[in-house]
Amino acid sequence: MKIGFIGLGNMGAPMALNLIKAGNELVVFDVVQKNIDSVVEQSKNKAVSAKSVKELAQSKLDLILTMLPAAQHVRSVYLGADGLLENVSPSTLLVDSSTIDPQTARDVCALAKAKGNDMLDAPVSGGTGGAQAGTLTFMVGGEETVFNAYKSFFQQMGKNIFYCGGTGNGQVAKVSNNMLLGISMIATAEAMALGVELGMDPKILASIINTSSGRCWSSDTYNPYPGVLENAPASRGYSGGFGTDLMLKDLGLAVEAAKSIKQPVMLGGLAAQIYQTFSKLGSGHGHLDFSAVIQMFKK
Amino acid sequence: MKIGFIGLGNMGAPMALNLIKAGNELVVFDVVQKNIDSVVEQSKNKAVSAKSVKELAQSKLDLILTMLPAAQHVRSVYLGADGLLENVSPSTLLVDSSTIDPQTARDVCALAKAKGNDMLDAPVSGGTGGAQAGTLTFMVGGEETVFNAYKSFFQQMGKNIFYCGGTGNGQVAKVSNNMLLGISMIATAEAMALGVELGMDPKILASIINTSSGRCWSSDTYNPYPGVLENAPASRGYSGGFGTDLMLKDLGLAVEAAKSIKQPVMLGGLAAQIYQTFSKLGSGHGHLDFSAVIQMFKK
Amino acid sequence: MKIGFIGLGNMGAPMALNLIKAGNELVVFDVVQKNIDSVVEQSKNKAVSAKSVKELAQSKLDLILTMLPAAQHVRSVYLGADGLLENVSPSTLLVDSSTIDPQTARDVCALAKAKGNDMLDAPVSGGTGGAQAGTLTFMVGGEETVFNAYKSFFQQMGKNIFYCGGTGNGQVAKVSNNMLLGISMIATAEAMALGVELGMDPKILASIINTSSGRCWSSDTYNPYPGVLENAPASRGYSGGFGTDLMLKDLGLAVEAAKSIKQPVMLGGLAAQIYQTFSKLGSGHGHLDFSAVIQMFKK
Amino acid sequence: MKIGFIGLGNMGAPMALNLIKAGNELVVFDVVQKNIDSVVEQSKNKAVSAKSVKELAQSKLDLILTMLPAAQHVRSVYLGADGLLENVSPSTLLVDSSTIDPQTARDVCALAKAKGNDMLDAPVSGGTGGAQAGTLTFMVGGEETVFNAYKSFFQQMGKNIFYCGGTGNGQVAKVSNNMLLGISMIATAEAMALGVELGMDPKILASIINTSSGRCWSSDTYNPYPGVLENAPASRGYSGGFGTDLMLKDLGLAVEAAKSIKQPVMLGGLAAQIYQTFSKLGSGHGHLDFSAVIQMFKK
Repeated sequence: MKIGFIGLGNMGAPMALNLIKAGNELVVFDVVQKNIDSVVEQSKNKAVSAKSVKELAQSKLDLILTMLPAAQHVRSVYLGADGLLENVSPSTLLVDSSTIDPQTARDVCALAKAKGNDMLDAPVSGGTGGAQAGTLTFMVGGEETVFNAYKSFFQQMGKNIFYCGGTGNGQVAKVSNNMLLGISMIATAEAMALGVELGMDPKILASIINTSSGRCWSSDTYNPYPGVLENAPASRGYSGGFGTDLMLKDLGLAVEAAKSIKQPVMLGGLAAQIYQTFSKLGSGHGHLDFSAVIQMFKK
Repeated sequence: MKIGFIGLGNMGAPMALNLIKAGNELVVFDVVQKNIDSVVEQSKNKAVSAKSVKELAQSKLDLILTMLPAAQHVRSVYLGADGLLENVSPSTLLVDSSTIDPQTARDVCALAKAKGNDMLDAPVSGGTGGAQAGTLTFMVGGEETVFNAYKSFFQQMGKNIFYCGGTGNGQVAKVSNNMLLGISMIATAEAMALGVELGMDPKILASIINTSSGRCWSSDTYNPYPGVLENAPASRGYSGGFGTDLMLKDLGLAVEAAKSIKQPVMLGGLAAQIYQTFSKLGSGHGHLDFSAVIQMFKK
Repeated sequence: MKIGFIGLGNMGAPMALNLIKAGNELVVFDVVQKNIDSVVEQSKNKAVSAKSVKELAQSKLDLILTMLPAAQHVRSVYLGADGLLENVSPSTLLVDSSTIDPQTARDVCALAKAKGNDMLDAPVSGGTGGAQAGTLTFMVGGEETVFNAYKSFFQQMGKNIFYCGGTGNGQVAKVSNNMLLGISMIATAEAMALGVELGMDPKILASIINTSSGRCWSSDTYNPYPGVLENAPASRGYSGGFGTDLMLKDLGLAVEAAKSIKQPVMLGGLAAQIYQTFSKLGSGHGHLDFSAVIQMFKK
Repeated sequence: MKIGFIGLGNMGAPMALNLIKAGNELVVFDVVQKNIDSVVEQSKNKAVSAKSVKELAQSKLDLILTMLPAAQHVRSVYLGADGLLENVSPSTLLVDSSTIDPQTARDVCALAKAKGNDMLDAPVSGGTGGAQAGTLTFMVGGEETVFNAYKSFFQQMGKNIFYCGGTGNGQVAKVSNNMLLGISMIATAEAMALGVELGMDPKILASIINTSSGRCWSSDTYNPYPGVLENAPASRGYSGGFGTDLMLKDLGLAVEAAKSIKQPVMLGGLAAQIYQTFSKLGSGHGHLDFSAVIQMFKK
């Protein structure tokens, strides 16, 4: 396929490279020129750069994938005067893999549909590690026939490809899962810190939780207590991983989406405030992996 | 073995019967006579009843197991003038399977030790279903040599038998695990209710969460959204299962234990208040399975 | 003065009528025609109606006051193609008394300034009662010289007129005060419900709190416990007053504003979730006065 | 009157000295000998020391006042074998000014009554400053005729003397007021920090809040933002005042009392956790005035 790719940051760049490896032709764009240059170079010039969103949009593409930081960028890239919807052919499938609020996803998809373009919202999880390894999880919303036709496309970058239902549901799945994750991590941190302070060995405590009803990904795969899991960020000073401020962004999307439909999220709301407090405390912790939030509960 | 068993409620009775099935001699006692009668009858008179804790204590037993509602009962049964410590032979092993605070467990064990008795704290999880099926989880604190010598004893009533470290650590493991469980259930309830209100099918949402980072026992084994799991309490009107007021008791123990060592538990503290609010709302929900807490977040 | 007034709802209509009583000429507009008709009639035709924002803007006015429901309406009335900034003379002072987020207030003021117009943000508190009685509180942000020149104008509608500092600070003051109010009301509700359930007479408890360190407006002026204060909404079934959903809107603005500057608001965030839960519970409580939130804590 | 006084700590010592100044005879006791010596010396030997609670109890006193750190001490001083109830004459009025849970207060009073002694629970607020100045607030529970007969006695140590209703209600009033206070202080801290971070001057913000619906003692009398009130602990590095760990104790009593009657206290529960987090963070803040909790929300 001939694919346009917009947004070549930490996540986008390795995803673009995986698409090239899979044999696609790529036209790439980013607002930061060196991000473009880096992908072009790493692709050994197989990726071709565009000078603008508009030029990319007009490049007769089968599909355009966007991977942008936030809803405002999605709105600007899709809806701006020199943006995708004004300039793209109706036969091009649009796929947005940014993590944004479901309402914006639905608004942009509806406008794309009005212009004649199919569009999928397809946010990912799995972090930069998953992006590089091609093992991302894609949560995809949109028409099921379109999803089925392009499932193999997503498999070029990911391992678990979920169809979540109509437009925006990819974002809904992501926001719901990540809110649960954000709460579970703090819950695991509180439980591990409490048990250890009360006298238990952290490895033994984790092993019991992991075969009991407290079992969760935050405990059995990503335990926040240092030394419990050798490969978890907790065992390397909370470097790498999924930053506290990224978790804060996702929880912010969840709380906002809940507010927009008048849905209460008590623990979700408090979890967001706990990460915000932790992010700002002392000299700042926003860059640390989100499991470092355990430092609110232990020395 | 010749075993004394005190506390023949919903949990204790089936545990006692499993010990008889396994070939042990039992002397049983409960403050409620019909609980005694019921076990004696179900055991076809293999279980022998005692008239008091004191009579039971003096029956030349290898081991006494207690299964009592709360710390005050444990204190009274073990430490009272007519209680176990005053009347038992030093060669009898004492095992307390009540769920109580770690400090009381440690205090009672220390007093038992001073009288020359070995003692283990061994709270269980798995509910009445697990008690009947003999598939309980035991979390055991005390001396490791004692634990090893009696591991097969616990296997007569349970499936997973965990050694948690020194005295009181069985209670620590239980309280830590159940606090995490109590939070995770509300978190799952919030995430499921949010996702569904935002437009997703609950089964699809659960299936995505269950293979993603939000994965947890509360979602994949005990999902609170009606219809997601056929055998979960949510699919039978929240009857049976683990009552809201029992979860409230366990969260109360966790919050108290944390307070006693000046350890913060932010989500744990709020989760306790949410279950308390739910328990009291309207005509009362304390008897419903704790996953019914999702009714705070959906109609 | 010749004043344009846009937004003639429950708050705006009585404010407009007070300006007429004070001897000003008024040109009025609202998107709902009957709101216009009602003010024109109540003013005995002293208020003149405009057909559009644009017509009003072009009416050679000394001052235009807007009183709109939310930021999106402010943006549209001020920044739209047929809006105020495109059509108003630079000599007209613009005053926005809507309650919106500080950032939108600052953005609109900056654009007004760029067109040559002075602008003040001047949200109010005091409810419809205060609007009718002319006893509103105005919290005003903008240039101090402008504020001083127009202080007497605000006094025609209000009693306490506060200068809060630069542009947007009127909104900051309102959002900060109302977040504190929203939390205090729940805190008072919890404390009153707890004390009464523990055996105290609610009037005695309130009288002690009101002369002690728990003293607050929510207790001494607007007590949520029925029967404590004769004139509080609690003593008339929580009718009238300041609706739960309006408090929810203000807490939403506070939490959003905090998020935008990465500032934690733990109790503010939870308070918003508690009102949201209460608003949605059962058959819905959003229309009840916000002090009805005590029903979360007592039967 | 001839008065026995037990508990001569920071609060008790100045209270005892005020009773002497008022012309009473005092017999004093404390478990710390130097606390006794200090009061005897400061009283110029007008206070007579007892060697034990028992000796004091047998000294033919009109009234015994106890001022102890926690419920366990109250239980031991009143109910122990060498304690007050075993040794005091039925004609002696017992007054406990310790801050403890209402249930213990009610239990001890009922046992005193059974021995024939009238007893009042009479916790205070006002801190060491109020104790020295004789301006404490007393919240008194017990029989109204007894209260009326001894109101002037309390006025020798305090300014506001409240009758709260039956036995234990003094503790109920204190616990309810202080829970509200503890929440209000965090709420004020969040609101002040938010407003200032959004661009307002702290003094202006406080002055607006103090004449608006956010008005509360925590803002107008004890503002946590440095520099707003010259005499508040915030303006002297949070030294002196009411320690964070003392507020934590009072919130613990409130949360416990609520739990015991199955009453939810959502903000109360979270406030306790916030103070606990703050107390433990970094090098520890438990000794700082509780208004220092604002440091969770600002640098």
